[in-house]
Amino acid sequence: MRPEFRELIRKEYHHLGTTFFNTAYFGPSPYSAKQKVARSLQKELDPSFYDYNTWMGISERMRTLIAKILGCSPDNISHQTSSSDVVNVVANGYPFKEGDIVCAVDKDYPSNVLPWMLAEKNTPCKFQLLNLGNEILPSVEWLKKNLPKETKIFDISWVTFDTGKKVDILGIGKLCRERNILFVVDSTQALGGMPISQEELSTIDVLTCSTYKWMLGPYGTAFAYFSDRAIELIQHRNANWILSPNSRVVYNLLDYTTETLPGARCYDRGQASNMLANSCLEAGLELIDEIGLENIAEHNAELRDYFLENYPKNKYHLITPREAMGNILALKARDLDSITLERELKFRNVDISVRQGNLRISFHLFNTQDQVDQLISALDI
Amino acid sequence: MRPEFRELIRKEYHHLGTTFFNTAYFGPSPYSAKQKVARSLQKELDPSFYDYNTWMGISERMRTLIAKILGCSPDNISHQTSSSDVVNVVANGYPFKEGDIVCAVDKDYPSNVLPWMLAEKNTPCKFQLLNLGNEILPSVEWLKKNLPKETKIFDISWVTFDTGKKVDILGIGKLCRERNILFVVDSTQALGGMPISQEELSTIDVLTCSTYKWMLGPYGTAFAYFSDRAIELIQHRNANWILSPNSRVVYNLLDYTTETLPGARCYDRGQASNMLANSCLEAGLELIDEIGLENIAEHNAELRDYFLENYPKNKYHLITPREAMGNILALKARDLDSITLERELKFRNVDISVRQGNLRISFHLFNTQDQVDQLISALDI
Repeated sequence: MRPEFRELIRKEYHHLGTTFFNTAYFGPSPYSAKQKVARSLQKELDPSFYDYNTWMGISERMRTLIAKILGCSPDNISHQTSSSDVVNVVANGYPFKEGDIVCAVDKDYPSNVLPWMLAEKNTPCKFQLLNLGNEILPSVEWLKKNLPKETKIFDISWVTFDTGKKVDILGIGKLCRERNILFVVDSTQALGGMPISQEELSTIDVLTCSTYKWMLGPYGTAFAYFSDRAIELIQHRNANWILSPNSRVVYNLLDYTTETLPGARCYDRGQASNMLANSCLEAGLELIDEIGLENIAEHNAELRDYFLENYPKNKYHLITPREAMGNILALKARDLDSITLERELKFRNVDISVRQGNLRISFHLFNTQDQVDQLISALDI
Repeated sequence: MRPEFRELIRKEYHHLGTTFFNTAYFGPSPYSAKQKVARSLQKELDPSFYDYNTWMGISERMRTLIAKILGCSPDNISHQTSSSDVVNVVANGYPFKEGDIVCAVDKDYPSNVLPWMLAEKNTPCKFQLLNLGNEILPSVEWLKKNLPKETKIFDISWVTFDTGKKVDILGIGKLCRERNILFVVDSTQALGGMPISQEELSTIDVLTCSTYKWMLGPYGTAFAYFSDRAIELIQHRNANWILSPNSRVVYNLLDYTTETLPGARCYDRGQASNMLANSCLEAGLELIDEIGLENIAEHNAELRDYFLENYPKNKYHLITPREAMGNILALKARDLDSITLERELKFRNVDISVRQGNLRISFHLFNTQDQVDQLISALDI
């Protein structure tokens, strides 16, 4: 990390009250969010003479910023409330035929499972949860054997929420392209902590991302990338006058049309130009854009590897496989129970996730090597 | 208005920078929103040790507050992003059969029209826009004649957004009950500025409300009331683990189920427990709840009637019919064009809507008789 970035991050994260390694639960927003949110709150408190176009332009300015980070056109970006709701858009808008199969991997986060369970009740599709058995993760070879040939959609988390396993989205994406499978990737536990390459993105049809974790935005917003192919295939099922070309001129309110603005805008949530959430999101995205996802990933990996070298191996064993690591590590305490662990970590003012004897540790841009030392020493209970 | 309420309102609205009569465009949030939003922003900036249940409980606490104001059970309330999205929930979840008709009134706000135009493409329903012809508004008698007998859903704004005409929702609701029509009411331009009676609510199946106008909340949130009958009829089409009974215990994440929490919760938007928007909404709702909708309506009507007595009648004629008035008045300038009007009103620091020679004036709880005098004098151009 270049010194000026270190300095910027230090300023943006001087407010954290703990040794915080818990981004996989909730990523803290940078300090610049404070002024931005105050400014947008001012509009809520006093909307006097608030210009319609400046207001409605918020969602477009955010779309452009998201597109810049992903390296795509704003036409491929949609505003959503959650990753689940993106998958629901796909599940409700895909033209399923009898015999079509949707696949996901058992134990994946519910947002990649529940929308398909519901779709199975409401559409002609069948949903299959692939059981990994003894496999560590779904490799391309394993999927070649296990994806039924009637598969039309495959939906998977890029990095698993619990153990932090990172799958080979490029390899899987190429397989999906070969088989003409719509490839849905939940990037919530990855993007922001690591970059996405143009080659990876080119194999993905729908990329979902909740912004309150690695993207350092607020809880309550998500975005999605839809490929041109996905936009052509997936019918939007929510109508809204803000999504129509008429909405550019407020007087045209009564020229009813279901025609929509270009690209993935047709899938937007209602009232996407909400100022409170977007101003907080903007702070996170601008910081990520300034520092760059490559630099962030490098920093995070350095901290993670430093931790791996130095953590008390006699007290914990590593669950996350070394060959498939993102920015999340899962460890299991050899002797300590969750209640003791939680209590002792709080006593040491260290925030990481503890669930059923498992630790989940997240490394993100605001963490420092000093903090990793504090974490290591706190774990040496 | 009791003196202690006047004092409370004065404190909550000392920050408005204009003589503001534009709630039908964007209602200002009370000053107490500032501290509440600052508190929730603090969680976004530093989520250290943020308790999962306290966090997820936000949407339930808001649901309870909304239900209290409406006088219904929290089980009948759903969190949404916009009025359109509520209507989309109905349009996508209603079990339409061939020959079913949905009706709305021509010139109504697009959120009560576009979802049905889209539903006509995706479901077996037919959509009919009723043309008022020479009628001032859709009366019960007129609807008796003009609602086709195959009508299954009737969707209307309680108060029209442009001219402020208030329809007889109780009478229409009774007619809908008689004919077994699902009655959808958009209360966005009414509720918050006027109360809803238990009798009125009992005839409504789906009541939608965007919160950023008369409810004094933020842009980007809406809520809906769903009657028990509506909940039974309308299938939810968005799955989300937060909506499942399992979500009460975060460890149950992988017990996949499409079972949902009781009542209208199944229709909730994703990430409904978002703290920024909800904290701003809470400020508006608490103020409304404290003062009471009856008191607010009385105050607003007094100001409106005072205006009606004293405005310069030689320069404007009244469009809103006296027998169907809410808190919005529409006037038409006899000689002045929009450009002159807008310029002169801004020069006088008065914020009201001006569109194509029409004025739209909104009277809400923070307005005073002094301000009405300022408004009247400003209009005397």
